[in-house]
Amino acid sequence: MTPKTAENSKTTLTDLVLPSETNPLNNLFGGELLARMDRAASISARRHSRRIVVTASVNHVAFNRAVPLGSVVTVEAKVSRAFKSSMEIYIDVWIEDRESGERTKANEAIYTFVAVDETGRPVNVPELIPETKLEKERFAAALRRKQLSLVLAGKMQPKDATELKALFE
Amino acid sequence: MTPKTAENSKTTLTDLVLPSETNPLNNLFGGELLARMDRAASISARRHSRRIVVTASVNHVAFNRAVPLGSVVTVEAKVSRAFKSSMEIYIDVWIEDRESGERTKANEAIYTFVAVDETGRPVNVPELIPETKLEKERFAAALRRKQLSLVLAGKMQPKDATELKALFE
Amino acid sequence: MTPKTAENSKTTLTDLVLPSETNPLNNLFGGELLARMDRAASISARRHSRRIVVTASVNHVAFNRAVPLGSVVTVEAKVSRAFKSSMEIYIDVWIEDRESGERTKANEAIYTFVAVDETGRPVNVPELIPETKLEKERFAAALRRKQLSLVLAGKMQPKDATELKALFE
Amino acid sequence: MTPKTAENSKTTLTDLVLPSETNPLNNLFGGELLARMDRAASISARRHSRRIVVTASVNHVAFNRAVPLGSVVTVEAKVSRAFKSSMEIYIDVWIEDRESGERTKANEAIYTFVAVDETGRPVNVPELIPETKLEKERFAAALRRKQLSLVLAGKMQPKDATELKALFE
Amino acid sequence: MTPKTAENSKTTLTDLVLPSETNPLNNLFGGELLARMDRAASISARRHSRRIVVTASVNHVAFNRAVPLGSVVTVEAKVSRAFKSSMEIYIDVWIEDRESGERTKANEAIYTFVAVDETGRPVNVPELIPETKLEKERFAAALRRKQLSLVLAGKMQPKDATELKALFE
Amino acid sequence: MTPKTAENSKTTLTDLVLPSETNPLNNLFGGELLARMDRAASISARRHSRRIVVTASVNHVAFNRAVPLGSVVTVEAKVSRAFKSSMEIYIDVWIEDRESGERTKANEAIYTFVAVDETGRPVNVPELIPETKLEKERFAAALRRKQLSLVLAGKMQPKDATELKALFE
Repeated sequence: MTPKTAENSKTTLTDLVLPSETNPLNNLFGGELLARMDRAASISARRHSRRIVVTASVNHVAFNRAVPLGSVVTVEAKVSRAFKSSMEIYIDVWIEDRESGERTKANEAIYTFVAVDETGRPVNVPELIPETKLEKERFAAALRRKQLSLVLAGKMQPKDATELKALFE
Repeated sequence: MTPKTAENSKTTLTDLVLPSETNPLNNLFGGELLARMDRAASISARRHSRRIVVTASVNHVAFNRAVPLGSVVTVEAKVSRAFKSSMEIYIDVWIEDRESGERTKANEAIYTFVAVDETGRPVNVPELIPETKLEKERFAAALRRKQLSLVLAGKMQPKDATELKALFE
Repeated sequence: MTPKTAENSKTTLTDLVLPSETNPLNNLFGGELLARMDRAASISARRHSRRIVVTASVNHVAFNRAVPLGSVVTVEAKVSRAFKSSMEIYIDVWIEDRESGERTKANEAIYTFVAVDETGRPVNVPELIPETKLEKERFAAALRRKQLSLVLAGKMQPKDATELKALFE
Repeated sequence: MTPKTAENSKTTLTDLVLPSETNPLNNLFGGELLARMDRAASISARRHSRRIVVTASVNHVAFNRAVPLGSVVTVEAKVSRAFKSSMEIYIDVWIEDRESGERTKANEAIYTFVAVDETGRPVNVPELIPETKLEKERFAAALRRKQLSLVLAGKMQPKDATELKALFE
Repeated sequence: MTPKTAENSKTTLTDLVLPSETNPLNNLFGGELLARMDRAASISARRHSRRIVVTASVNHVAFNRAVPLGSVVTVEAKVSRAFKSSMEIYIDVWIEDRESGERTKANEAIYTFVAVDETGRPVNVPELIPETKLEKERFAAALRRKQLSLVLAGKMQPKDATELKALFE
Repeated sequence: MTPKTAENSKTTLTDLVLPSETNPLNNLFGGELLARMDRAASISARRHSRRIVVTASVNHVAFNRAVPLGSVVTVEAKVSRAFKSSMEIYIDVWIEDRESGERTKANEAIYTFVAVDETGRPVNVPELIPETKLEKERFAAALRRKQLSLVLAGKMQPKDATELKALFE
């Protein structure tokens, strides 16, 4: 399979925050943002693999900024690294000020999707070639995250998680 | 006010067609696509004007292709021409094939938005500078469409609609 | 096929404006009204043709009045003219004042639907017989609109659009 | 207050059954139909009283017929009797066959609404004058239903429910 | 079939009141609460019967307390009596005060479901064994309600409704 | 503030998987499950703190099992550990088989919420007292997760994350 760039899978979902998606404080529900990011990330994974894709996991997501009713929210998803049949998707979320037009980073999230065939069995996906500095950093970190995830799931011994372990030395 | 380019207001809304948006034939409801285009267009108008914007009208929209359940739909909106306080927004809709990755044009639509202040009174908006060949064609046609709209509303005499009339000569 | 009257296809959809359908100014989203009109119009077209129907196009729609949260909105759709396999549907939208009970016209819209068989191929529909003065006016204007639509789509020469051209002479 | 006829409050809500409203058997959820009837009935009560209205109770509702996905459903609500500040609303639900155009009765339901002022205190409503034979029957039965409801709530002695008691003699 | 206890079918649905479910007074729509209770009750009926279940009827429901936006609402459903193929489900609704944590009864409702096979034909369900004092009271009252329902539907002579008739003597 | 048990904040949300929440494979969207868990977890955090709560972060969530359309899903949330103003919520998700009645674990997730006052400033919350063996294990692990989260956010030196570091030795 021909490797692909992160740009190839870039998916932009710009939309308003509607009243039905806000909590009693008139801010976007954390859960709604998770759902919106899931849809953008699934399209990105599908563009990379051209296969049916299913959400495998969501990495740690921090909600640092409230997103108020009526905001314009841009969710941008790109594949950050491809493994055998799974893909890590990095998602950046921006909100913009109506009057100044300024964009502010509101969130980041990392989802993992698996490509499957019609019977649900995992299938191979193309390699991901990072191009920009940021894409390369995320590509490298993706491996540490995968090791951490395997360690936490009890599927890898901490001592074998070479890249991850290096962090604590 | 500093004029702006069409690119400045470009808004991309890529999303899936969900089961709750489909008709009994499992295709996206025409009405749902109209609603989705309205949201993308309103963000585009807001980016151009940095004001509150309200839908003023929708031009003729033709639904040439059915958009099936599960499709990835990209709605792309850009301001095509700005008048005193109104903006014409041109919307292109694409669907893409999962296996080949090929994008096909599914629809075009033209919405008009008006910029208003907090009391709902129209306010002036910046001029629009078309750059590409397509943007220039749409910019020119926008004037004819405005004349047609005024004629149909009985606010302009057909004989004064110079650009429009030329079409029939 | 036995011709039918406009009254035969009259469809009334009276409903509230719910919080999930309003924009940040607490008025019904233009896009939501378009979707609601699409549903009423599709039922009207289905009643006329007794066939599966799909939205073919939406004519120019002007949003002249804001429709506030909590309003009672009545959407009334009737077939205004039938062509070979397509039907033009004229839609009137009313809102009513709770205290006085007075009804005010909020919008008009014109949608075109096509009747199809299970494989999606167009099928013939009955003729429409206008009865009231208003129905007759709309019936006549429907032909001019069809010509305009063909001209704009490049499928008819402006010089052949006899009824439409007469407007500019 | 001037008495009103049932026709004055007649409210028609014709709409499609959408995929998001169906149960796993592809029929309209009982709960969704209850919600749709509640909206139509509340508009009817509001038209009779020209006041804010709140649902007070739902009488026995039987679901005799499944309503399949894609059906056209007509909910028709009319005030059947007005008491001091409450109104009984009688709701008839019809589905229609696409091919034959025949309408079939799918459900009946009876809701009670109370008219309130802005602080939520009950206010008086106009009397209801039944006109047709069916309206008169429903008007008479409404009193028995009110007595039954008071008896079940422990607010009336069974022996005082004269009209209701007569049924068992 | 082995009889089951009410506890076996106990179903708890605790959720927030979201903005999209409230009326213009910012309280939960009566119709939405009916829909939520229908879902909880259907799960309870399914747990008792382990069959496909469909809503057969809703008994009288009184809405005594408004449920404001942002409330935590707990819907608790349990089978109160099983007949041949139908089950009566008793539903209690609670709201709780955020600051004091106190729970208040907001509603009660009684739904009837029927267990069916894949072709929609009624099938037998297990007996229900009431255990607590409240369960026993509801079990006894369920028979009177069934008789009343049969009388109102014209399927039983009032004089044969022994338990119900006793109320009026 | 009086410490509370995990049982005090236990929140159960049992509901059906509706057609509007499923992906094209007719399984519950990962994003929808994240949103449902967010609502249950927020109620749990609110019950513990009796304060307004906002989602602060979502820990790693793995989607191990598809949840098909029509499933009964039980989301159970309990506070696993309270810090100064934040609370870790542990969420268990179960699906049950209609015929056998057997419950299967479908997912686990960990969310963090912060208690705030009306101006959005963090406020203190009561301590959490774990009681069962499982609650005690989750209580202990919560500290390691908090350290990991601080390390990843660059707010703690890896060498100071005593409990976390121990894992790699």
